[in-house]
Amino acid sequence: MDEKEIKTLTDIGRDFMKCPVWSETLLSDQDKKLPQPELYHEADTDSEVLPLPRNFEDLDLNENLFDLLCSRKSRRVYTEEALSLLELSFLLWSAQGVKGRRGEKYATLRTVPSGGARHGFECYVEVTRVTGLEPGIYHYLAGSHALELRNRQTEEERLQALAGQKWAARAPAILYFTAVPYRFEWRYTIHAHRIALVDLGHVGENLYLAAEALKLGTCGIGAFTQSHCDKVLKVDGDNEFTVYLQPVGRVKDREESEEAAFYSFVTEEGL
Amino acid sequence: MDEKEIKTLTDIGRDFMKCPVWSETLLSDQDKKLPQPELYHEADTDSEVLPLPRNFEDLDLNENLFDLLCSRKSRRVYTEEALSLLELSFLLWSAQGVKGRRGEKYATLRTVPSGGARHGFECYVEVTRVTGLEPGIYHYLAGSHALELRNRQTEEERLQALAGQKWAARAPAILYFTAVPYRFEWRYTIHAHRIALVDLGHVGENLYLAAEALKLGTCGIGAFTQSHCDKVLKVDGDNEFTVYLQPVGRVKDREESEEAAFYSFVTEEGL
Repeated sequence: MDEKEIKTLTDIGRDFMKCPVWSETLLSDQDKKLPQPELYHEADTDSEVLPLPRNFEDLDLNENLFDLLCSRKSRRVYTEEALSLLELSFLLWSAQGVKGRRGEKYATLRTVPSGGARHGFECYVEVTRVTGLEPGIYHYLAGSHALELRNRQTEEERLQALAGQKWAARAPAILYFTAVPYRFEWRYTIHAHRIALVDLGHVGENLYLAAEALKLGTCGIGAFTQSHCDKVLKVDGDNEFTVYLQPVGRVKDREESEEAAFYSFVTEEGL
Repeated sequence: MDEKEIKTLTDIGRDFMKCPVWSETLLSDQDKKLPQPELYHEADTDSEVLPLPRNFEDLDLNENLFDLLCSRKSRRVYTEEALSLLELSFLLWSAQGVKGRRGEKYATLRTVPSGGARHGFECYVEVTRVTGLEPGIYHYLAGSHALELRNRQTEEERLQALAGQKWAARAPAILYFTAVPYRFEWRYTIHAHRIALVDLGHVGENLYLAAEALKLGTCGIGAFTQSHCDKVLKVDGDNEFTVYLQPVGRVKDREESEEAAFYSFVTEEGL
């Protein structure tokens, strides 16, 4: 790739980040009164639905936001311990939980903000060590706060999904977020995608803080193998595709030195 | 805009959201050992620097994350009351506060996660009613947790910046976030911008939760007048440009009915 091409693509990227001037002739499907898409995926009709516990009052969530923001950091070294089902339940609820509705079927109100309350994401979780759950990839049913088994993959395949990042493959649970772009496009048309990416960050930060509140650790992953993730989640890669991954695991103070190894290049290169 | 053009632009937008396959011939400026950009803007040499208070222990931050996630929602109706300087200080620290450093000048560690710890944002705040501060637009100096006066604008200009959104113009403080794209591009080249937008959402969600923890209200604004905001913040619109706005204000239960008016179309249109 030559310098000129890099400059052109960089300029396009920068423009993508800016607030567009909405053309007066551009009508959204919402403006056209077209039927709006589903608010979330329902369970497959032949799936067994596993309700998630909601007794969050039993969790030890003592810290206030100041403490959480002080202690939060990216954590990539996890112990062998399992997560409890209640911990996983709280993580999923924090990231995508439905708290209420607006209108008959206009919008869900969730634990996370979304432009125009479009909430155009689905969440999946790959379980390797969660008490009471068989290992596998589950779909989070936001509408009923439940799980359904979606697929399974081998350790080798998991590592492929994670673009070879071994630290992430060792996590007891890995959350995969997909985008369902038409849920945003119905309202925001060609300008939907910038809004959707910011919304994705809202989701990711809730998950960071939820993990911290549970004294677990996480680290957002923006680099993964798109085609593999889409395939294993059984999404088509166009109307739904993977956009963000967050492994979550239990951490111990003793892993601090291992964490530091991820940044040894800073010292080595004198940065 | 015809259907074909909308389809083309929608497909481009969708592709932008996906995880790119990094070309092996694409070297970042970091790979090339080029000098890295500043970690944050320093104060203008002729500015008076106003240190912000850090006695956050004096704030009433009792709620844990579960409570915050339960109560958080977009809030657009603010009272006439001022914010305290300590409240504003906590909001700015939550959104962009520097907690530490990695290496001599490699990275800042902040209250919010950022891909590769690039933290390519600057924060400005337009103050209309904050105790102890003259009205005006201030630059948040993340490195020293302080403010410097940047500019002033009239009410009419503020409304123009906000693309006519009167509810936002009534807020006692409006936070403006800009992107400094080269801070991301130095490491992520042409793939920087998708990562930056997700990071922007991390920032926005911290601010949502910080406002909620202070029993204030906020609502993220993705639609603003780019050119006006860039001009009034005195940024060039290319190497630094406005990407997100969040007005913050005090809210009262009695405003619930006014809040509901923002969604009257849902009932009116039978959605």
